[in-house]
Amino acid sequence: MTSVISDTSERRMVFVSGRAHPELADQVAQELGIEAVPTTAYTFANGELYVRFGESVRGANAFVLQSHAAPINESIMEQLIMVDALKRASAKNITVIMPCYGYARQDKKHKGREPISARLMADLFKTAGADRIMSIDLHTAQIQGFFDGPVDHLWAMPLLAQYVRTRVAPGNLTIVSPDAGRVRLADQWSDHMGAPLAIIHKRRDPSIPNQVKVHELVGEVEGRTCVLVDDMIDTGGTIVQAANALFENGAKDVIVASTHGLLSGPAVERLRDSAISEVIVTDTLPISDEKRFDKLTVLSIAPLIARAVREVFDDGSVTSLFNGGV
Amino acid sequence: MTSVISDTSERRMVFVSGRAHPELADQVAQELGIEAVPTTAYTFANGELYVRFGESVRGANAFVLQSHAAPINESIMEQLIMVDALKRASAKNITVIMPCYGYARQDKKHKGREPISARLMADLFKTAGADRIMSIDLHTAQIQGFFDGPVDHLWAMPLLAQYVRTRVAPGNLTIVSPDAGRVRLADQWSDHMGAPLAIIHKRRDPSIPNQVKVHELVGEVEGRTCVLVDDMIDTGGTIVQAANALFENGAKDVIVASTHGLLSGPAVERLRDSAISEVIVTDTLPISDEKRFDKLTVLSIAPLIARAVREVFDDGSVTSLFNGGV
Amino acid sequence: MTSVISDTSERRMVFVSGRAHPELADQVAQELGIEAVPTTAYTFANGELYVRFGESVRGANAFVLQSHAAPINESIMEQLIMVDALKRASAKNITVIMPCYGYARQDKKHKGREPISARLMADLFKTAGADRIMSIDLHTAQIQGFFDGPVDHLWAMPLLAQYVRTRVAPGNLTIVSPDAGRVRLADQWSDHMGAPLAIIHKRRDPSIPNQVKVHELVGEVEGRTCVLVDDMIDTGGTIVQAANALFENGAKDVIVASTHGLLSGPAVERLRDSAISEVIVTDTLPISDEKRFDKLTVLSIAPLIARAVREVFDDGSVTSLFNGGV
Amino acid sequence: MTSVISDTSERRMVFVSGRAHPELADQVAQELGIEAVPTTAYTFANGELYVRFGESVRGANAFVLQSHAAPINESIMEQLIMVDALKRASAKNITVIMPCYGYARQDKKHKGREPISARLMADLFKTAGADRIMSIDLHTAQIQGFFDGPVDHLWAMPLLAQYVRTRVAPGNLTIVSPDAGRVRLADQWSDHMGAPLAIIHKRRDPSIPNQVKVHELVGEVEGRTCVLVDDMIDTGGTIVQAANALFENGAKDVIVASTHGLLSGPAVERLRDSAISEVIVTDTLPISDEKRFDKLTVLSIAPLIARAVREVFDDGSVTSLFNGGV
Amino acid sequence: MTSVISDTSERRMVFVSGRAHPELADQVAQELGIEAVPTTAYTFANGELYVRFGESVRGANAFVLQSHAAPINESIMEQLIMVDALKRASAKNITVIMPCYGYARQDKKHKGREPISARLMADLFKTAGADRIMSIDLHTAQIQGFFDGPVDHLWAMPLLAQYVRTRVAPGNLTIVSPDAGRVRLADQWSDHMGAPLAIIHKRRDPSIPNQVKVHELVGEVEGRTCVLVDDMIDTGGTIVQAANALFENGAKDVIVASTHGLLSGPAVERLRDSAISEVIVTDTLPISDEKRFDKLTVLSIAPLIARAVREVFDDGSVTSLFNGGV
Amino acid sequence: MTSVISDTSERRMVFVSGRAHPELADQVAQELGIEAVPTTAYTFANGELYVRFGESVRGANAFVLQSHAAPINESIMEQLIMVDALKRASAKNITVIMPCYGYARQDKKHKGREPISARLMADLFKTAGADRIMSIDLHTAQIQGFFDGPVDHLWAMPLLAQYVRTRVAPGNLTIVSPDAGRVRLADQWSDHMGAPLAIIHKRRDPSIPNQVKVHELVGEVEGRTCVLVDDMIDTGGTIVQAANALFENGAKDVIVASTHGLLSGPAVERLRDSAISEVIVTDTLPISDEKRFDKLTVLSIAPLIARAVREVFDDGSVTSLFNGGV
Repeated sequence: MTSVISDTSERRMVFVSGRAHPELADQVAQELGIEAVPTTAYTFANGELYVRFGESVRGANAFVLQSHAAPINESIMEQLIMVDALKRASAKNITVIMPCYGYARQDKKHKGREPISARLMADLFKTAGADRIMSIDLHTAQIQGFFDGPVDHLWAMPLLAQYVRTRVAPGNLTIVSPDAGRVRLADQWSDHMGAPLAIIHKRRDPSIPNQVKVHELVGEVEGRTCVLVDDMIDTGGTIVQAANALFENGAKDVIVASTHGLLSGPAVERLRDSAISEVIVTDTLPISDEKRFDKLTVLSIAPLIARAVREVFDDGSVTSLFNGGV
Repeated sequence: MTSVISDTSERRMVFVSGRAHPELADQVAQELGIEAVPTTAYTFANGELYVRFGESVRGANAFVLQSHAAPINESIMEQLIMVDALKRASAKNITVIMPCYGYARQDKKHKGREPISARLMADLFKTAGADRIMSIDLHTAQIQGFFDGPVDHLWAMPLLAQYVRTRVAPGNLTIVSPDAGRVRLADQWSDHMGAPLAIIHKRRDPSIPNQVKVHELVGEVEGRTCVLVDDMIDTGGTIVQAANALFENGAKDVIVASTHGLLSGPAVERLRDSAISEVIVTDTLPISDEKRFDKLTVLSIAPLIARAVREVFDDGSVTSLFNGGV
Repeated sequence: MTSVISDTSERRMVFVSGRAHPELADQVAQELGIEAVPTTAYTFANGELYVRFGESVRGANAFVLQSHAAPINESIMEQLIMVDALKRASAKNITVIMPCYGYARQDKKHKGREPISARLMADLFKTAGADRIMSIDLHTAQIQGFFDGPVDHLWAMPLLAQYVRTRVAPGNLTIVSPDAGRVRLADQWSDHMGAPLAIIHKRRDPSIPNQVKVHELVGEVEGRTCVLVDDMIDTGGTIVQAANALFENGAKDVIVASTHGLLSGPAVERLRDSAISEVIVTDTLPISDEKRFDKLTVLSIAPLIARAVREVFDDGSVTSLFNGGV
Repeated sequence: MTSVISDTSERRMVFVSGRAHPELADQVAQELGIEAVPTTAYTFANGELYVRFGESVRGANAFVLQSHAAPINESIMEQLIMVDALKRASAKNITVIMPCYGYARQDKKHKGREPISARLMADLFKTAGADRIMSIDLHTAQIQGFFDGPVDHLWAMPLLAQYVRTRVAPGNLTIVSPDAGRVRLADQWSDHMGAPLAIIHKRRDPSIPNQVKVHELVGEVEGRTCVLVDDMIDTGGTIVQAANALFENGAKDVIVASTHGLLSGPAVERLRDSAISEVIVTDTLPISDEKRFDKLTVLSIAPLIARAVREVFDDGSVTSLFNGGV
Repeated sequence: MTSVISDTSERRMVFVSGRAHPELADQVAQELGIEAVPTTAYTFANGELYVRFGESVRGANAFVLQSHAAPINESIMEQLIMVDALKRASAKNITVIMPCYGYARQDKKHKGREPISARLMADLFKTAGADRIMSIDLHTAQIQGFFDGPVDHLWAMPLLAQYVRTRVAPGNLTIVSPDAGRVRLADQWSDHMGAPLAIIHKRRDPSIPNQVKVHELVGEVEGRTCVLVDDMIDTGGTIVQAANALFENGAKDVIVASTHGLLSGPAVERLRDSAISEVIVTDTLPISDEKRFDKLTVLSIAPLIARAVREVFDDGSVTSLFNGGV
Repeated sequence: MTSVISDTSERRMVFVSGRAHPELADQVAQELGIEAVPTTAYTFANGELYVRFGESVRGANAFVLQSHAAPINESIMEQLIMVDALKRASAKNITVIMPCYGYARQDKKHKGREPISARLMADLFKTAGADRIMSIDLHTAQIQGFFDGPVDHLWAMPLLAQYVRTRVAPGNLTIVSPDAGRVRLADQWSDHMGAPLAIIHKRRDPSIPNQVKVHELVGEVEGRTCVLVDDMIDTGGTIVQAANALFENGAKDVIVASTHGLLSGPAVERLRDSAISEVIVTDTLPISDEKRFDKLTVLSIAPLIARAVREVFDDGSVTSLFNGGV
């Protein structure tokens, strides 16, 4: 007899999904050529959530996908609970896939006595048991630094840009940032497309007392096709105001490209009724039929996620997938 | 000049509250003779929560109250975010008051590949910045051990028992546990009231194949006034079935005493339509007007919380408030 | 040349054991078809413990078995020290096997200013370097939540129940809980065996001042064979008092089934001299010859532990082994 | 006799400083009306650093100031070692003052396999024992979220702006961001001064192959006095190129305002030889005589730091000091 | 009404003690002019320990004293459990006093696959909730670095040296280290007393095969009074062998001075029967009557501990108490 | 389809190096038969460091070598940053190789209010992401206990001793410790070589007031060849003083053997001008041409490091490499 039992080691991958965006989970699973682990998940009468995996995840590299979609706090909590269950069921390694990182906009204190909820989210997932986070087009790239571990930051811009190229001639394009906070993103688009840049920003008009803010266009848009870019469209207010400012300044056409289509509250109505000619988003968040309208184009994000999962599992490295590389 | 600046030290207490149960917050504040710190809290269009405190909390002993009421995940997340904001605003010490601890029933794995969500909650609050937890009648006392720090475990049973004594003569009472899991609570009532104990439990009937479960009464209830005790009433199913079993076994009257009135889904209808003569709860959770019905008595929990907060702030010790003492 | 050296990965398992229960270690090793790693362990003159492993454990999945047997604090400390040595010797993964979890009964604060020693134990092992805990029939299932990581909670009840079935006819059985705290266990037995339930509980007799406590039987035992169930038999006091109460209430026969046979102090004498006809335990703890008596039956726990170790090492899943599944 | 000894509590503050910027330490101490704790600090022959405090810091609120000035890694290490010494000498609370946060520009992964050194710094100080960080005009506000605890983020812009107002008439001003990454800062200036905004950004010229980048001005500067704003001036390359682009586009005058004057390598020569009329910085970093030149104005940052330290010690709240409030 | 309650802050100190060395606890308490908090502590039949404090410790600076005396693992576990109870009872700050640090000699790996138990002890106490450690004459000074927090390292050498001076004329003294590991301590004595140094060390004799070790004296002792110094006397073997070597080399007299009197196993017999004229220890560990013999002098350590506790509570600084100062 | 993807697992090793000692990195890589991962590393104008790995390290066992050579704080910071980059790039496991552990001499508090920088270094590397440390001849063996994880402590003494044997006849050797702190090392040499021991130590001369210290030789060196041993030679002051004392006491010859050749400041001049006949060191630190002199012999440490790396990667165990075994 011996005091060591040896065995050929095998790496195993499992894919589990919360209930927030089943279509995306199905597509990612299909791209991966895998079935999601059968999972029992339901909501108790008082709103508490319950999950249980139907098969063993012992020793597996687990990827747990959840869109942080409305009701967003429930979606996040469900994912936290799934991570806890994976940890206690002896998963070897847990990668949390949050296509659109919840609370990403609360990434700093704007005023005193505020939370930094984006950091809090990173810590909550770490505590629950997450080893790695995978997300797409974070609101600010610094959020990578909020998580104490690897963050695979995927990059949807090439996908959106490729589509934009099929719709408008590059020669007459101007990339527009809807406010001062998105200029870096617009700058990346500008560089990627070889197109000039313009910015809408708000400031007090010094000629009018009482701090009235005006929308000011910086740059030239006269006669140009403008691509308004943003990481997310929430209620659409900023985007539509920016588009109006562009048309007022002589823009020929305005299209909008954004990774995350939250389309909350009045967003659909605002965008549909605006003079914007096309709104392009991906399906990192579920977009229900009521939210769909003629001018809206939804690109599938599943292939990007599936390829990244494969890279992570295979310890490979396709830098083109990642914003900030491998 | 000197290399030390000295100053008389002063202890400061602030009280903040989430939005889940404003009536309770008001009552606790009033009992404390304090105003809650003015707090801006709202929900963004996509469901993300925002809080900001209107006054400095630097160096203060902060008590942050939130009922884990429906929508429960939102209530919990709001409290986590408030704790984060307190921590980043340099509160000296943060006590999280959760009158009814959310997810307390998921305190163990019943089957494989489940989460232990009650432990997860303790860890999430610790991570956010909580130094101490204060809660009332935890589903199981072991949950105290889930938090890595002091837990002030308040005890509402004396409050409920005192009320029960005003309604029924002690001589003819029997305390009943509605299932095997609540026997310890019933045992404490039995000891406190000097009344005998009975239990309802479910098991397979060996004479019938296919695992049909039967409700079995253990103990004597013939002609007795039964006090069915539980820590919480959720959908009311277990309680009403237990009450029916008691009446079938000859109980003269059944009243129900429970700390936490979740009263989810069909609870109100079930209880109102049952033969139970009175249902007694406290207001650890908000009980809206639609949930109130004739047989329901709601006792105020605010005095107990306020006294405990005072004790904690004063570093005092009134063991009678606490289940498991100071 | 290349910048990566690759190699086929191999999984290795080693099994080490403390000195508290060598027979159990031998049996588990034999069931596994492995030899325990040769280990030097001794006690210095002043009581300090020393351990050293005689072979490399680098990169291995290490399982370290120790019964928390008398002298219990020494047994626990020895296991903590072994975990530290494994960690510093680069074991890849450390599973702590504690067949009977020490201090499990101190799982909550009964009164103020008490420790929660069961949680403390979980934290001490985590700190020393434990990645996973394996234990059998925890005093309360909530203890799983005390450890920040996977807990494999084995289940000896089927083993005990199978044996009981060979001794008594199921038709005339009643399962009895010796106090209010063990009703959940009795409930599981009752369901498993299809037998009715009875409970012994203590309460103040309201008719007598000065808080005299009385033992009260809840349920019917007249003419029945009673199986008194408990997770552990310590001094035997509770069990023997319960048995007496059963006989006084007309029980025909009483047998006792319990996973952990601590058999401390007067236990052997009490049990032997009682009217109990048989006492059934497993050997999670060592049972010396002086502790053995005619009516005592000791079932071997080694096969259950060995199968569970195999499952963990193979990343398999035989839910039947686990209370709370995989 | 009693089992408690009570005593009136007193709060004590001590101020200690590393060796990187003694003038600043002296001024802050003077503003505070305190002497820095006498500290022995020297560098061993092999470059290892040593510090020792000459007076007790037990129980004190310690503020430890160090400019992350060249040699920057030595300055940071000295501060880490001072924090360790304070922790081991039983300081009650340690606030790390780093007027210019080292490695702040490495706040995200630009490409794969890079560090996020700004997060690393936050974690190193946390590990050494820091309870709070105080810093001025962080490169990005998100860095606040890198530290697990309160960050007092001071705001030098009002100081700089106040000075600018004394030099140029507001009516003819344009605020200019030297690249896409600083637009948020320029936006704040624009709002604060009520002046329009312009941006310099770089992109590939699509008409020229091989990815040549061009500097493009977005906005109008013809005949305007431009205030080029940045958080820090390092080698001066970006600033001088931006100034040149402004003059080429018809700017009447260009002044530069920046919080942190690193003035590394060729910075002084570049700025002095440029057409920029004035360069305004604060002394968060030491500015040696060789680095001073006629057009350079250095504003004292000590009063801002001293007031913030007072606020923190007094648990007060003067939001105007802080970017992001209290 | 206001949103802040303020109160004058008061500092409170409590002193608690385990059961290992009640005489020392009494003396320290008396020196402090305080009573130890009444504490219930007992050992269950299976050896598990239980403690409960009889008075509130909320908000207090708690000092918990335990000698790591035989049975040492029990003594350590009792102290760990006391720390846990203090933490959960909301003590503000916990100082662990271990006059003789248990497992201090296992402070490094001598061979592969050993534990570093001295570091493990530091981590266990940290995990349980210790904020600070106070100990006397650590086996090696590096152990201070094992604890993540302040260590107050008291220094008994002046006490022992002062006594030695009353017994022997300084002019004829030689300080002797009994082996190579204690030379630093002997060096400190040598410097303190102004006396020369000698060393006993063991090595292989190259002239004899099979690695026989010889005791070799380095230094001169002919006609001298030798003070053999060590931090602890365990079984006395090393000390008595060293003394014999000294006499063989012509020493006139040998006395032994050591802080910690473990006096395990054959120590008393060995020392009593040796030619050593006096053995001086302190009572950091209990020395029972059976362990006392004519040549043994026991100095009281309580005054040193009490003064250090006072210094810590008062945030004072009497460097003379501490080895390595405040 | 299935819910698990399996794959044969492969172990991968990568080797990366900082810029402090490229020759050593090259030699280690060559011994390993691997190329170091191509790494971009440079220093910004303000002294901040930057690193980026040119190839994927995902899933790899990474070994990161850096000599803690002058400028030492920069070397350490570069290694910390490399560890951070490895962690964020998803390396599976990170072993930090520091041939000469920086700040090792600050391993305890000599006086109050000092840091314990050697512990701080261990914590900084842990925080950055190190899983294991590999180092050679630590200043004190206790430093192993400063790191919370495995420490592979290599042993260069056999290498040095083997060389010494080629130069001097063993019969006439005496091993000398240059001060009281190095006696343990000298003791190991003495045992290894079968040679007697002598010690130089400093103490106050009691006959002269004002605490003048004298160098005192303990042991016999008349007519002997002395091997002065130390773990490191820094400025050479202690060593040369010790050598002088040996010659004054009649030593025939003195050679010096030391693992780490810091050779700071006046070291080269002092050693060259002394009567020491040969100085033997290894190249754990870079030794520039200006530091080389006729009497200096530099032994290559690369083979030892390479073999240890191989052992760690192969989960093997060649105890002879390690001081304190595997």
